[in-house]
Amino acid sequence: MTTDCPDELIAIANKLADLARPIAQRYFRSGIAIETKLDASPVTRADREIEAALRQYLKQTVPDHAVIGEEMGGSLGHAGPVWILDPIDGTKAFATGTPVFGTLIGLAIEKRFVLGVIDQPISEERWIGTAGQQTTLNGTRTQVSDCTGVSAARLYTTAPEYFGQEAAFDAFVRVRDQVMFTRYGADCYAFGLLASGHVDVIVESQLNLWDVAALVPVVEGAGGIITDWHGQPLTTDFEGQVVATCNSGLHETVLQLLTA
Amino acid sequence: MTTDCPDELIAIANKLADLARPIAQRYFRSGIAIETKLDASPVTRADREIEAALRQYLKQTVPDHAVIGEEMGGSLGHAGPVWILDPIDGTKAFATGTPVFGTLIGLAIEKRFVLGVIDQPISEERWIGTAGQQTTLNGTRTQVSDCTGVSAARLYTTAPEYFGQEAAFDAFVRVRDQVMFTRYGADCYAFGLLASGHVDVIVESQLNLWDVAALVPVVEGAGGIITDWHGQPLTTDFEGQVVATCNSGLHETVLQLLTA
Repeated sequence: MTTDCPDELIAIANKLADLARPIAQRYFRSGIAIETKLDASPVTRADREIEAALRQYLKQTVPDHAVIGEEMGGSLGHAGPVWILDPIDGTKAFATGTPVFGTLIGLAIEKRFVLGVIDQPISEERWIGTAGQQTTLNGTRTQVSDCTGVSAARLYTTAPEYFGQEAAFDAFVRVRDQVMFTRYGADCYAFGLLASGHVDVIVESQLNLWDVAALVPVVEGAGGIITDWHGQPLTTDFEGQVVATCNSGLHETVLQLLTA
Repeated sequence: MTTDCPDELIAIANKLADLARPIAQRYFRSGIAIETKLDASPVTRADREIEAALRQYLKQTVPDHAVIGEEMGGSLGHAGPVWILDPIDGTKAFATGTPVFGTLIGLAIEKRFVLGVIDQPISEERWIGTAGQQTTLNGTRTQVSDCTGVSAARLYTTAPEYFGQEAAFDAFVRVRDQVMFTRYGADCYAFGLLASGHVDVIVESQLNLWDVAALVPVVEGAGGIITDWHGQPLTTDFEGQVVATCNSGLHETVLQLLTA
Protein backbone atom coordinates (compact mmCIF):
# COMPACT_ATOMS: atom_id res chain seq x y z
CA MET A 1 0.00 0.00 0.00
CA THR A 2 1.45 3.35 -0.98
CA THR A 3 1.11 6.43 1.12
CA ASP A 4 0.60 9.99 -0.02
CA CYS A 5 1.57 11.45 3.33
CA PRO A 6 5.16 11.37 4.61
CA ASP A 7 5.77 9.82 8.02
CA GLU A 8 7.33 13.05 9.27
CA LEU A 9 4.02 14.83 8.84
CA ILE A 10 2.16 12.06 10.65
CA ALA A 11 4.64 12.41 13.50
CA ILE A 12 3.99 16.16 13.65
CA ALA A 13 0.23 15.57 13.77
CA ASN A 14 0.66 13.11 16.62
CA LYS A 15 2.84 15.57 18.49
CA LEU A 16 0.21 18.28 18.08
CA ALA A 17 -2.45 16.00 19.54
CA ASP A 18 -0.09 15.14 22.39
CA LEU A 19 0.34 18.84 23.14
CA ALA A 20 -3.40 19.54 23.07
CA ARG A 21 -4.49 16.65 25.26
CA PRO A 22 -3.21 17.77 28.70
CA ILE A 23 -4.57 21.28 28.20
CA ALA A 24 -8.04 19.93 27.45
CA GLN A 25 -7.78 17.52 30.35
CA ARG A 26 -6.78 20.28 32.77
CA TYR A 27 -9.76 22.49 31.88
CA PHE A 28 -12.39 19.75 31.49
CA ARG A 29 -15.04 20.07 34.24
CA SER A 30 -12.94 22.82 35.86
CA GLY A 31 -15.73 25.43 35.91
CA ILE A 32 -13.97 27.31 33.10
CA ALA A 33 -15.70 30.53 31.95
CA ILE A 34 -17.64 30.29 28.70
CA GLU A 35 -17.64 33.27 26.34
CA THR A 36 -19.89 33.74 23.33
CA LYS A 37 -18.30 34.60 19.99
CA LEU A 38 -19.77 36.91 17.37
CA ASP A 39 -21.32 33.92 15.58
CA ALA A 40 -23.00 32.97 18.91
CA SER A 41 -20.86 29.88 19.35
CA PRO A 42 -19.14 29.35 22.70
CA VAL A 43 -15.40 29.54 23.31
CA THR A 44 -13.18 29.09 26.35
CA ARG A 45 -9.62 29.76 27.43
CA ALA A 46 -8.90 26.10 26.67
CA ASP A 47 -9.71 26.56 22.95
CA ARG A 48 -7.29 29.48 22.72
CA GLU A 49 -4.50 27.91 24.81
CA ILE A 50 -4.55 24.76 22.72
CA GLU A 51 -4.48 26.61 19.42
CA ALA A 52 -1.62 28.84 20.63
CA ALA A 53 0.39 25.80 21.72
CA LEU A 54 -0.12 24.04 18.40
CA ARG A 55 0.76 27.15 16.40
CA GLN A 56 3.93 27.63 18.42
CA TYR A 57 5.04 24.05 17.76
CA LEU A 58 4.30 24.34 14.03
CA LYS A 59 6.17 27.64 13.81
CA GLN A 60 9.23 26.04 15.38
CA THR A 61 9.04 22.77 13.46
CA VAL A 62 7.75 23.64 9.98
CA PRO A 63 8.01 27.43 9.68
CA ASP A 64 7.33 27.32 5.94
CA HIS A 65 3.92 25.65 6.42
CA ALA A 66 0.75 27.73 6.70
CA VAL A 67 -1.71 27.44 9.60
CA ILE A 68 -5.44 28.07 9.81
CA GLY A 69 -7.23 27.72 13.12
CA GLU A 70 -10.75 28.27 14.39
CA GLU A 71 -9.78 30.78 17.05
CA MET A 72 -6.92 32.71 15.41
CA GLY A 73 -7.73 32.67 11.73
CA GLY A 74 -5.37 32.32 8.79
CA SER A 75 -5.94 31.99 5.08
CA LEU A 76 -5.55 29.45 2.31
CA GLY A 77 -3.39 31.65 0.07
CA HIS A 78 -0.42 29.35 0.29
CA ALA A 79 0.88 26.84 -2.23
CA GLY A 80 2.52 24.50 0.30
CA PRO A 81 1.11 22.43 3.16
CA VAL A 82 -1.58 24.08 5.29
CA TRP A 83 -2.33 22.84 8.80
CA ILE A 84 -6.00 23.30 9.69
CA LEU A 85 -6.75 23.24 13.41
CA ASP A 86 -9.86 23.11 15.55
CA PRO A 87 -8.52 23.09 19.11
CA ILE A 88 -11.84 21.93 20.58
CA ASP A 89 -14.50 20.78 18.15
CA GLY A 90 -17.63 20.44 20.23
CA THR A 91 -17.06 23.28 22.66
CA LYS A 92 -20.65 22.88 23.92
CA ALA A 93 -19.84 19.29 24.91
CA PHE A 94 -16.52 20.35 26.45
CA ALA A 95 -18.16 23.18 28.39
CA THR A 96 -20.78 20.82 29.84
CA GLY A 97 -18.48 18.01 30.90
CA THR A 98 -19.41 15.58 28.13
CA PRO A 99 -16.40 13.67 26.76
CA VAL A 100 -17.38 13.57 23.08
CA PHE A 101 -15.58 16.70 21.86
CA GLY A 102 -12.27 16.44 20.02
CA THR A 103 -9.13 18.21 18.93
CA LEU A 104 -9.01 18.25 15.13
CA ILE A 105 -5.73 18.41 13.25
CA GLY A 106 -5.93 18.44 9.46
CA LEU A 107 -3.38 18.92 6.72
CA ALA A 108 -4.23 20.13 3.23
CA ILE A 109 -1.89 20.07 0.25
CA GLU A 110 -3.04 21.66 -3.00
CA LYS A 111 -6.63 21.90 -1.69
CA ARG A 112 -6.72 18.20 -0.82
CA PHE A 113 -7.09 16.89 2.74
CA VAL A 114 -4.25 14.38 3.11
CA LEU A 115 -3.94 13.85 6.87
CA GLY A 116 -6.41 14.03 9.73
CA VAL A 117 -6.41 13.41 13.47
CA ILE A 118 -9.48 13.27 15.72
CA ASP A 119 -8.28 13.18 19.32
CA GLN A 120 -10.61 12.73 22.30
CA PRO A 121 -8.56 13.88 25.30
CA ILE A 122 -10.66 12.41 28.12
CA SER A 123 -11.20 8.87 26.82
CA GLU A 124 -7.76 9.14 25.17
CA GLU A 125 -8.99 7.91 21.80
CA ARG A 126 -7.11 9.03 18.71
CA TRP A 127 -8.21 8.34 15.15
CA ILE A 128 -5.56 8.98 12.47
CA GLY A 129 -6.34 8.98 8.77
CA THR A 130 -3.86 9.55 5.97
CA ALA A 131 -4.39 9.43 2.25
CA GLY A 132 -3.55 5.94 1.02
CA GLN A 133 -3.42 4.23 4.42
CA GLN A 134 -5.94 2.47 6.61
CA THR A 135 -7.33 4.64 9.42
CA THR A 136 -6.26 3.68 12.93
CA LEU A 137 -7.81 4.15 16.37
CA ASN A 138 -5.08 4.21 19.02
CA GLY A 139 -2.81 2.39 16.58
CA THR A 140 -5.23 -0.37 15.60
CA ARG A 141 -6.69 -0.42 12.09
CA THR A 142 -10.35 0.40 12.03
CA GLN A 143 -13.06 0.27 9.38
CA VAL A 144 -16.60 1.32 8.66
CA SER A 145 -19.64 -0.91 9.16
CA ASP A 146 -21.12 -3.08 6.42
CA CYS A 147 -24.58 -1.48 6.69
CA THR A 148 -26.10 -1.22 3.22
CA GLY A 149 -29.80 -0.53 3.76
CA VAL A 150 -30.88 2.91 4.87
CA SER A 151 -33.59 1.39 7.07
CA ALA A 152 -30.87 -0.29 9.15
CA ALA A 153 -28.68 2.83 9.31
CA ARG A 154 -27.76 4.73 12.47
CA LEU A 155 -27.81 8.47 11.70
CA TYR A 156 -25.95 11.19 13.61
CA THR A 157 -26.08 14.93 13.37
CA THR A 158 -24.98 17.63 15.80
CA ALA A 159 -28.16 19.71 16.17
CA PRO A 160 -31.29 20.43 14.12
CA GLU A 161 -30.72 24.20 14.35
CA TYR A 162 -27.76 23.95 11.99
CA PHE A 163 -30.10 23.08 9.13
CA GLY A 164 -32.12 26.27 9.54
CA GLN A 165 -35.89 26.25 8.94
CA GLU A 166 -35.95 25.80 5.19
CA ALA A 167 -34.86 23.42 2.47
CA ALA A 168 -31.81 22.05 4.27
CA PHE A 169 -33.92 21.02 7.26
CA ASP A 170 -36.45 19.34 4.99
CA ALA A 171 -33.59 17.45 3.32
CA PHE A 172 -32.32 16.27 6.69
CA VAL A 173 -35.83 15.17 7.70
CA ARG A 174 -36.13 13.06 4.53
CA VAL A 175 -33.06 11.11 5.67
CA ARG A 176 -34.17 11.02 9.30
CA ASP A 177 -37.53 9.55 8.29
CA GLN A 178 -35.85 6.59 6.54
CA VAL A 179 -33.10 5.48 8.93
CA MET A 180 -33.36 3.07 11.86
CA PHE A 181 -32.79 5.90 14.34
CA THR A 182 -31.24 9.35 14.71
CA ARG A 183 -28.96 10.56 17.46
CA TYR A 184 -27.85 14.13 18.09
CA GLY A 185 -24.87 15.83 19.58
CA ALA A 186 -21.55 14.16 18.78
CA ASP A 187 -19.68 16.72 16.62
CA CYS A 188 -16.40 15.24 15.30
CA TYR A 189 -16.65 12.22 17.57
CA ALA A 190 -19.44 10.88 15.34
CA PHE A 191 -16.99 10.71 12.43
CA GLY A 192 -14.56 8.68 14.53
CA LEU A 193 -17.43 6.36 15.44
CA LEU A 194 -18.38 6.06 11.76
CA ALA A 195 -14.76 5.20 10.91
CA SER A 196 -14.93 2.45 13.55
CA GLY A 197 -18.22 0.99 12.33
CA HIS A 198 -20.58 2.21 15.06
CA VAL A 199 -22.41 4.91 13.10
CA ASP A 200 -23.54 4.51 9.48
CA VAL A 201 -24.61 7.96 8.25
CA ILE A 202 -23.78 11.52 9.32
CA VAL A 203 -25.48 14.57 7.80
CA GLU A 204 -24.24 18.03 8.73
CA SER A 205 -24.73 21.59 7.56
CA GLN A 206 -22.92 24.87 8.25
CA LEU A 207 -19.58 23.19 8.92
CA ASN A 208 -16.42 25.25 8.60
CA LEU A 209 -13.09 24.34 7.03
CA TRP A 210 -11.54 23.49 10.44
CA ASP A 211 -14.51 21.25 11.30
CA VAL A 212 -14.00 19.16 8.18
CA ALA A 213 -10.31 19.02 7.24
CA ALA A 214 -9.34 16.28 9.70
CA LEU A 215 -12.48 14.23 9.13
CA VAL A 216 -12.00 13.47 5.43
CA PRO A 217 -8.86 11.29 5.68
CA VAL A 218 -10.21 9.54 8.79
CA VAL A 219 -13.46 8.56 7.07
CA GLU A 220 -11.93 7.70 3.69
CA GLY A 221 -9.08 5.70 5.21
CA ALA A 222 -11.63 3.55 7.04
CA GLY A 223 -13.47 2.76 3.80
CA GLY A 224 -16.18 5.37 4.16
CA ILE A 225 -17.42 8.05 1.77
CA ILE A 226 -17.54 11.73 2.65
CA THR A 227 -18.76 14.39 0.20
CA ASP A 228 -20.93 17.45 0.02
CA TRP A 229 -24.71 17.00 -0.35
CA HIS A 230 -24.33 16.78 -4.14
CA GLY A 231 -21.76 14.00 -4.01
CA GLN A 232 -18.79 16.23 -4.77
CA PRO A 233 -15.48 15.46 -3.06
CA LEU A 234 -14.57 17.76 -0.19
CA THR A 235 -11.63 20.09 -0.80
CA THR A 236 -10.64 23.32 0.87
CA ASP A 237 -13.26 24.98 -1.37
CA PHE A 238 -16.20 23.12 0.24
CA GLU A 239 -19.20 25.13 1.40
CA GLY A 240 -20.58 23.78 4.66
CA GLN A 241 -22.78 20.78 3.83
CA VAL A 242 -21.31 17.35 4.53
CA VAL A 243 -22.59 13.79 4.30
CA ALA A 244 -20.57 10.77 5.38
CA THR A 245 -21.62 7.15 5.03
CA CYS A 246 -20.05 3.72 5.30
CA ASN A 247 -20.21 2.72 1.62
CA SER A 248 -21.03 3.95 -1.85
CA GLY A 249 -24.43 2.23 -2.12
CA LEU A 250 -25.73 3.78 1.08
CA HIS A 251 -24.13 7.07 0.09
CA GLU A 252 -26.05 7.14 -3.18
CA THR A 253 -29.33 6.47 -1.36
CA VAL A 254 -28.70 9.26 1.15
CA LEU A 255 -27.67 11.72 -1.57
CA GLN A 256 -30.93 10.99 -3.40
CA LEU A 257 -32.91 11.73 -0.23
CA LEU A 258 -30.98 14.94 0.42
CA THR A 259 -31.49 16.27 -3.11
CA ALA A 260 -35.00 14.90 -3.73
CA MET B 1 -28.32 15.33 58.39
CA THR B 2 -30.96 12.63 58.58
CA THR B 3 -31.52 10.11 55.87
CA ASP B 4 -34.82 8.73 54.64
CA CYS B 5 -33.20 5.78 52.93
CA PRO B 6 -31.65 2.91 54.92
CA ASP B 7 -28.03 2.00 54.19
CA GLU B 8 -29.04 -1.56 53.30
CA LEU B 9 -31.05 -0.25 50.37
CA ILE B 10 -28.16 1.93 49.18
CA ALA B 11 -25.92 -1.15 49.33
CA ILE B 12 -28.40 -3.09 47.20
CA ALA B 13 -28.51 -0.27 44.63
CA ASN B 14 -24.72 -0.25 44.45
CA LYS B 15 -24.66 -4.01 44.02
CA LEU B 16 -27.17 -3.76 41.17
CA ALA B 17 -25.00 -1.20 39.39
CA ASP B 18 -21.96 -3.44 39.97
CA LEU B 19 -23.83 -6.33 38.33
CA ALA B 20 -24.90 -4.24 35.32
CA ARG B 21 -21.55 -2.66 34.57
CA PRO B 22 -19.57 -5.65 33.21
CA ILE B 23 -22.49 -6.71 31.00
CA ALA B 24 -22.67 -3.25 29.41
CA GLN B 25 -18.89 -3.16 29.07
CA ARG B 26 -18.82 -6.54 27.34
CA TYR B 27 -21.38 -5.57 24.70
CA PHE B 28 -20.25 -1.96 24.15
CA ARG B 29 -18.86 -1.56 20.61
CA SER B 30 -19.18 -5.32 20.10
CA GLY B 31 -21.30 -5.13 16.96
CA ILE B 32 -24.33 -6.26 18.95
CA ALA B 33 -27.57 -6.61 16.94
CA ILE B 34 -30.09 -3.81 17.36
CA GLU B 35 -33.79 -4.65 17.38
CA THR B 36 -36.66 -2.19 17.15
CA LYS B 37 -39.44 -2.37 19.73
CA LEU B 38 -43.12 -1.71 19.09
CA ASP B 39 -42.68 1.91 20.16
CA ALA B 40 -39.87 2.21 17.55
CA SER B 41 -37.16 2.53 20.19
CA PRO B 42 -34.09 0.29 19.87
CA VAL B 43 -33.20 -2.57 22.20
CA THR B 44 -30.33 -5.04 22.39
CA ARG B 45 -29.45 -8.26 24.13
CA ALA B 46 -27.47 -6.16 26.61
CA ASP B 47 -30.61 -4.34 27.82
CA ARG B 48 -32.35 -7.64 28.47
CA GLU B 49 -29.38 -9.42 30.07
CA ILE B 50 -28.80 -6.55 32.47
CA GLU B 51 -32.45 -6.37 33.52
CA ALA B 52 -32.59 -10.13 34.02
CA ALA B 53 -29.47 -10.07 36.19
CA LEU B 54 -30.80 -7.23 38.34
CA ARG B 55 -34.19 -8.88 38.74
CA GLN B 56 -32.56 -12.15 39.78
CA TYR B 57 -30.50 -10.41 42.45
CA LEU B 58 -33.52 -8.51 43.78
CA LYS B 59 -35.60 -11.70 43.88
CA GLN B 60 -32.92 -13.40 45.97
CA THR B 61 -32.19 -10.45 48.22
CA VAL B 62 -35.50 -8.66 48.78
CA PRO B 63 -38.19 -11.04 47.54
CA ASP B 64 -40.95 -8.94 49.08
CA HIS B 65 -40.03 -5.84 47.04
CA ALA B 66 -41.68 -5.14 43.69
CA VAL B 67 -39.74 -4.55 40.46
CA ILE B 68 -40.59 -2.54 37.35
CA GLY B 69 -38.21 -2.54 34.40
CA GLU B 70 -38.18 -1.08 30.92
CA GLU B 71 -37.75 -4.41 29.18
CA MET B 72 -39.80 -6.81 31.33
CA GLY B 73 -42.58 -4.69 32.72
CA GLY B 74 -44.14 -4.79 36.18
CA SER B 75 -46.71 -2.65 37.89
CA LEU B 76 -46.99 -0.16 40.73
CA GLY B 77 -49.77 -2.00 42.54
CA HIS B 78 -47.63 -2.67 45.62
CA ALA B 79 -47.61 -0.92 48.97
CA GLY B 80 -43.94 -1.61 49.77
CA PRO B 81 -40.68 -0.61 48.08
CA VAL B 82 -40.63 -0.74 44.28
CA TRP B 83 -37.37 -0.97 42.37
CA ILE B 84 -37.57 0.82 39.03
CA LEU B 85 -34.93 -0.22 36.49
CA ASP B 86 -33.76 1.02 33.13
CA PRO B 87 -30.94 -1.36 32.22
CA ILE B 88 -29.60 0.95 29.49
CA ASP B 89 -31.01 4.45 29.32
CA GLY B 90 -29.74 5.86 26.05
CA THR B 91 -29.76 2.69 23.98
CA LYS B 92 -29.11 4.79 20.84
CA ALA B 93 -25.88 6.06 22.41
CA PHE B 94 -24.96 2.55 23.57
CA ALA B 95 -25.67 1.07 20.14
CA THR B 96 -23.44 3.64 18.44
CA GLY B 97 -20.44 3.41 20.73
CA THR B 98 -21.00 6.69 22.58
CA PRO B 99 -20.27 6.45 26.33
CA VAL B 100 -23.05 8.72 27.61
CA PHE B 101 -25.75 6.11 28.26
CA GLY B 102 -26.43 4.84 31.77
CA THR B 103 -27.92 2.13 33.91
CA LEU B 104 -30.71 3.63 36.01
CA ILE B 105 -31.69 2.15 39.36
CA GLY B 106 -34.49 3.87 41.22
CA LEU B 107 -36.43 3.03 44.35
CA ALA B 108 -39.92 4.34 45.10
CA ILE B 109 -41.70 4.06 48.43
CA GLU B 110 -45.30 5.23 48.66
CA LYS B 111 -45.06 6.91 45.24
CA ARG B 112 -41.99 8.90 46.26
CA PHE B 113 -38.56 8.44 44.64
CA VAL B 114 -36.19 7.94 47.57
CA LEU B 115 -33.04 6.48 46.00
CA GLY B 116 -31.46 6.81 42.58
CA VAL B 117 -28.32 5.59 40.85
CA ILE B 118 -27.05 6.77 37.45
CA ASP B 119 -24.17 4.51 36.44
CA GLN B 120 -22.04 5.07 33.32
CA PRO B 121 -20.30 1.72 32.76
CA ILE B 122 -17.57 2.86 30.33
CA SER B 123 -16.26 5.94 32.10
CA GLU B 124 -17.11 4.19 35.39
CA GLU B 125 -18.95 7.18 36.83
CA ARG B 126 -21.67 6.55 39.38
CA TRP B 127 -23.99 9.21 40.76
CA ILE B 128 -25.96 8.17 43.87
CA GLY B 129 -28.78 10.25 45.29
CA THR B 130 -30.84 9.45 48.36
CA ALA B 131 -33.55 11.44 50.03
CA GLY B 132 -32.01 13.58 52.77
CA GLN B 133 -28.35 13.11 51.75
CA GLN B 134 -25.96 14.94 49.47
CA THR B 135 -25.57 13.33 46.05
CA THR B 136 -22.20 11.73 45.34
CA LEU B 137 -20.24 11.01 42.16
CA ASN B 138 -17.93 8.06 42.73
CA GLY B 139 -18.15 8.68 46.46
CA THR B 140 -17.41 12.42 46.38
CA ARG B 141 -20.16 14.91 47.21
CA THR B 142 -21.31 16.85 44.22
CA GLN B 143 -23.57 19.85 43.72
CA VAL B 144 -25.33 21.85 41.07
CA SER B 145 -23.95 25.04 39.50
CA ASP B 146 -24.74 28.51 40.81
CA CYS B 147 -26.14 29.70 37.45
CA THR B 148 -29.09 32.02 38.10
CA GLY B 149 -29.70 33.82 34.80
CA VAL B 150 -31.36 31.96 31.96
CA SER B 151 -29.13 33.76 29.44
CA ALA B 152 -26.08 32.11 31.03
CA ALA B 153 -27.70 28.67 31.23
CA ARG B 154 -26.53 25.54 29.40
CA LEU B 155 -29.59 23.59 28.22
CA TYR B 156 -29.70 19.88 27.40
CA THR B 157 -32.39 17.76 25.86
CA THR B 158 -32.23 14.35 24.24
CA ALA B 159 -33.81 15.02 20.83
CA PRO B 160 -36.28 17.51 19.35
CA GLU B 161 -38.53 14.71 18.04
CA TYR B 162 -39.64 13.89 21.58
CA PHE B 163 -41.53 17.19 21.77
CA GLY B 164 -43.66 16.40 18.73
CA GLN B 165 -44.64 19.16 16.31
CA GLU B 166 -47.10 21.07 18.46
CA ALA B 167 -47.34 22.97 21.71
CA ALA B 168 -44.65 21.03 23.55
CA PHE B 169 -42.10 21.78 20.84
CA ASP B 170 -43.04 25.47 20.92
CA ALA B 171 -42.55 25.45 24.70
CA PHE B 172 -39.11 23.91 24.32
CA VAL B 173 -38.18 26.49 21.68
CA ARG B 174 -39.15 29.32 24.04
CA VAL B 175 -36.55 28.01 26.49
CA ARG B 176 -33.99 27.27 23.77
CA ASP B 177 -34.28 30.83 22.49
CA GLN B 178 -33.32 32.29 25.90
CA VAL B 179 -30.42 30.12 27.08
CA MET B 180 -26.71 30.54 26.35
CA PHE B 181 -26.70 27.39 24.25
CA THR B 182 -28.48 24.07 23.73
CA ARG B 183 -26.92 20.65 23.41
CA TYR B 184 -28.68 17.44 22.40
CA GLY B 185 -28.24 13.79 23.06
CA ALA B 186 -27.22 12.96 26.60
CA ASP B 187 -30.20 11.05 28.06
CA CYS B 188 -29.70 10.32 31.78
CA TYR B 189 -26.07 11.40 31.65
CA ALA B 190 -27.24 15.03 31.39
CA PHE B 191 -28.89 14.73 34.80
CA GLY B 192 -25.64 13.49 36.31
CA LEU B 193 -23.86 16.44 34.70
CA LEU B 194 -26.50 18.80 36.11
CA ALA B 195 -26.00 17.29 39.57
CA SER B 196 -22.27 17.98 39.18
CA GLY B 197 -22.68 21.58 38.05
CA HIS B 198 -21.85 21.23 34.35
CA VAL B 199 -25.37 21.61 32.91
CA ASP B 200 -27.92 24.15 34.20
CA VAL B 201 -31.27 23.24 32.62
CA ILE B 202 -32.73 20.04 31.16
CA VAL B 203 -36.12 19.94 29.45
CA GLU B 204 -37.55 16.59 28.39
CA SER B 205 -40.85 15.21 27.17
CA GLN B 206 -42.24 11.71 26.75
CA LEU B 207 -40.14 10.24 29.55
CA ASN B 208 -41.27 7.00 31.16
CA LEU B 209 -41.29 6.02 34.81
CA TRP B 210 -38.02 4.08 34.46
CA ASP B 211 -36.34 7.05 32.80
CA VAL B 212 -37.14 9.34 35.72
CA ALA B 213 -37.19 7.35 38.97
CA ALA B 214 -33.42 7.38 39.51
CA LEU B 215 -32.94 10.97 38.39
CA VAL B 216 -35.07 12.67 41.03
CA PRO B 217 -32.97 11.83 44.13
CA VAL B 218 -29.72 12.48 42.21
CA VAL B 219 -30.83 15.98 41.16
CA GLU B 220 -32.49 16.92 44.46
CA GLY B 221 -29.63 15.62 46.57
CA ALA B 222 -27.24 17.87 44.63
CA GLY B 223 -29.36 20.95 45.35
CA GLY B 224 -31.26 20.97 42.06
CA ILE B 225 -34.97 21.16 41.33
CA ILE B 226 -36.79 18.59 39.21
CA THR B 227 -40.53 18.80 38.53
CA ASP B 228 -43.04 18.43 35.74
CA TRP B 229 -43.58 21.38 33.37
CA HIS B 230 -46.16 22.85 35.76
CA GLY B 231 -43.79 22.81 38.73
CA GLN B 232 -45.40 19.79 40.36
CA PRO B 233 -43.13 17.33 42.21
CA LEU B 234 -42.43 14.09 40.37
CA THR B 235 -43.97 10.99 41.87
CA THR B 236 -44.74 7.62 40.35
CA ASP B 237 -47.89 9.29 38.93
CA PHE B 238 -45.92 11.71 36.69
CA GLU B 239 -46.87 11.97 33.04
CA GLY B 240 -43.81 12.35 30.85
CA GLN B 241 -42.73 16.00 30.94
CA VAL B 242 -39.72 16.83 33.09
CA VAL B 243 -37.72 19.98 33.76
CA ALA B 244 -34.62 20.04 35.93
CA THR B 245 -32.62 23.11 36.89
CA CYS B 246 -29.91 24.08 39.33
CA ASN B 247 -31.96 26.36 41.61
CA SER B 248 -35.46 27.62 42.35
CA GLY B 249 -35.02 31.04 40.72
CA LEU B 250 -33.91 29.60 37.40
CA HIS B 251 -36.57 26.92 37.73
CA GLU B 252 -39.31 29.53 38.03
CA THR B 253 -38.02 31.34 34.94
CA VAL B 254 -37.95 28.16 32.88
CA LEU B 255 -41.43 27.11 34.06
CA GLN B 256 -42.77 30.49 32.95
CA LEU B 257 -41.24 30.02 29.51
CA LEU B 258 -42.62 26.48 29.22
CA THR B 259 -46.16 27.49 30.17
CA ALA B 260 -46.24 30.94 28.51
